[in-house]
Amino acid sequence: MIFSGSNSAEILVIGDEVISGLIVDTNSKYLGERIYETGVGVSRITKIGDDFSIMEECIEQALQRSDWVILTGGLGITHDDITKSVLTKVFASNLHRDEKVIQMLEETFRKRNRAIPASVQSQCEVPDNCQVLYNEVGTAPGFRFERDGHVLFCLPGVPHEMKHLFERYIAPELVKHSSQTFSHRILKTTGISEADLWDKVGSIDALQKKVTLASLPSHLGVRIRLSVLTETGGKETLDEVEQSLRDRIGRYVYGINEETLEGKVGQLLTEKSMIIATAESCTGGLIGHLLTQISGSSNYFKEGFVVYSNDAKASRLGVEQQVLDKHGAVSESVARLMAEGVRRVSGADIGVSVTGISGPTGGSEEKPVGLTFIAVSDSAGTWCGKYIYTHDRIKNKERTAQTALNLVRLRLLGLLENT
Amino acid sequence: MIFSGSNSAEILVIGDEVISGLIVDTNSKYLGERIYETGVGVSRITKIGDDFSIMEECIEQALQRSDWVILTGGLGITHDDITKSVLTKVFASNLHRDEKVIQMLEETFRKRNRAIPASVQSQCEVPDNCQVLYNEVGTAPGFRFERDGHVLFCLPGVPHEMKHLFERYIAPELVKHSSQTFSHRILKTTGISEADLWDKVGSIDALQKKVTLASLPSHLGVRIRLSVLTETGGKETLDEVEQSLRDRIGRYVYGINEETLEGKVGQLLTEKSMIIATAESCTGGLIGHLLTQISGSSNYFKEGFVVYSNDAKASRLGVEQQVLDKHGAVSESVARLMAEGVRRVSGADIGVSVTGISGPTGGSEEKPVGLTFIAVSDSAGTWCGKYIYTHDRIKNKERTAQTALNLVRLRLLGLLENT
Repeated sequence: MIFSGSNSAEILVIGDEVISGLIVDTNSKYLGERIYETGVGVSRITKIGDDFSIMEECIEQALQRSDWVILTGGLGITHDDITKSVLTKVFASNLHRDEKVIQMLEETFRKRNRAIPASVQSQCEVPDNCQVLYNEVGTAPGFRFERDGHVLFCLPGVPHEMKHLFERYIAPELVKHSSQTFSHRILKTTGISEADLWDKVGSIDALQKKVTLASLPSHLGVRIRLSVLTETGGKETLDEVEQSLRDRIGRYVYGINEETLEGKVGQLLTEKSMIIATAESCTGGLIGHLLTQISGSSNYFKEGFVVYSNDAKASRLGVEQQVLDKHGAVSESVARLMAEGVRRVSGADIGVSVTGISGPTGGSEEKPVGLTFIAVSDSAGTWCGKYIYTHDRIKNKERTAQTALNLVRLRLLGLLENT
Repeated sequence: MIFSGSNSAEILVIGDEVISGLIVDTNSKYLGERIYETGVGVSRITKIGDDFSIMEECIEQALQRSDWVILTGGLGITHDDITKSVLTKVFASNLHRDEKVIQMLEETFRKRNRAIPASVQSQCEVPDNCQVLYNEVGTAPGFRFERDGHVLFCLPGVPHEMKHLFERYIAPELVKHSSQTFSHRILKTTGISEADLWDKVGSIDALQKKVTLASLPSHLGVRIRLSVLTETGGKETLDEVEQSLRDRIGRYVYGINEETLEGKVGQLLTEKSMIIATAESCTGGLIGHLLTQISGSSNYFKEGFVVYSNDAKASRLGVEQQVLDKHGAVSESVARLMAEGVRRVSGADIGVSVTGISGPTGGSEEKPVGLTFIAVSDSAGTWCGKYIYTHDRIKNKERTAQTALNLVRLRLLGLLENT
């Protein structure tokens, strides 16, 4: 699936901080994915430090090998930002002050009531023989050089500036040169293991004739990526394969692409004009945090209780002390009383509760670390389930919150009966 | 700070999935950081697809340039795993079945009550002229080749297998060849901008003679990394520089290395035998979620209220309706009443509250998106502060929770007066 030769790109990432592991380089993943989507292949990603001669060598070699070279980093204003000097050597160029860059920087700093600081003045200087990629979201302009039909784009390393310039200047040019482009769609599933998911899907031979399938598992669910290379965007093909997968595993699919589980729950609550309230023990507030990641969530989320102690479970939600004494806080009985209690106390239409042992301490033979009960209650009654998670504390909490939201989704869809 | 020449390493990462952005490559960050710590410099990281001739060329070039080459990926059992074939060509080698690998795989599969599957049989074959790096945590062995004094290590790409083999075989060999090794310490600060932080630090000339300083800002605070290259570990030097920085900016330093803000708050609460309760509006439960990331937090965190609606603020925490009507939910008066209310209602020793407009909607001329009030209340009274955050909704929530925890830390340290 890798291209090379007549229409291939490579990526050069500059910076000591990247090769010494001081920061995670997310730029090359972004660029790799986006270039790939434009239909141009990525043949190589090279990361090097702020070293003049190595940079010079790498730029020369990349320009000889590849039609497109996309370089990021080293365009800032500190002493180790030497990319511009290297470029003037490679392209036998001189620097001049660019009027439009000066204007843009003056405007930026006028908003802060100051002149262009001395330290930023060097950003006004650009190489002679290139196209300037004007940066509306930062102070470092990018550059486009061309030699023997091969193109070098230079972008600053700050991720949101890099992305802005890539989308504004580079993606359109790459697409224009590609006869076919990649389209992707990601189906997001949760509540089923990767093996069971593909068992339920069954034979994928017919689907694989239409799209390339990738399965990306995590502790929160399996993402399925469909990819198709077409001249026309491939929407119909993606729609068809998505529908075919939904016919087999629709219950587990909560969204596509950028859609989130908490967004889906919010959408269903909004459609049904229902109010939700949360009663959290082991997740400590994470379910409420997720629900409120969505703008507008105040329309359906009124309140939550983080009842970490037994006292709080009793006094806030009316969980009887004798039930806590008899069954323990981590039990089906308590989870049910919490979900029913939070609904009653808050006046919400649907209540969700979690109680569990996140670990690494607090487990016993009878109640191991990871044991978790989750309940969902509405006017039709209550559902409760038992889970045993085997991740670390933080992942156990994340998985519990994800499962709770998924159970709310299923309940709202009428796919979760009382137990 | 980049080495090259007589004692430098480079990293080769193999895999279509890495250069097309399908997965985030975390291996090269891990390797970069760990190699750097052994005192060997990293001069280059190259990522390429599963392509025979490009792999061959890159291995040849890397072996000529660098003393150490560490390659990961392409040692699995699927048709695109061709690293072993490339190695036999580069080193003019043949494959033979390795008895110890066979034994280890038989043992692994015996535990699952099965014989070595046909698909895994190829893992028993290793090149003739290399040292086998036996893999106790997976099925793919690694290899160590040597040519003209330059060493190539090949590791599988599965992160935990890669790390295991690196630590077991490679790190000790690199350290043995380094007269000096790098030690790092990270000071974690919050509650101050990067520019103001370094203003307060003042001249760093004296410090920079002892250590290398790096400043790593994010919306949650600035991390300062101290690095020192020594024969002896450099603990005294790091201690001395850390103390010197703490003398100037100690108020803002909440921990070092892996320490977290929520862990520090937990430690202070434990030392003072104090109980905390939370009253969250805009953060939706994130503060409680962070507090409960710490094992043992049930000893000091009893409960929290997510009072997202005005009704909940009034009914759970006793915030008077007339104050809500007069000042609005996002106001200093309401934040104070929330912090005092949650302390009174829960019986906790210290209460923390947040109320704000996370955005992107809900702002007005008078109360813009990002306006946030945070209050901390204990037996000595109440502190309240006003903030305006300018990130997106999710980062605004994260920053609000971080600030709230930091204010609790300062209050517990006696560094936050009533307002």
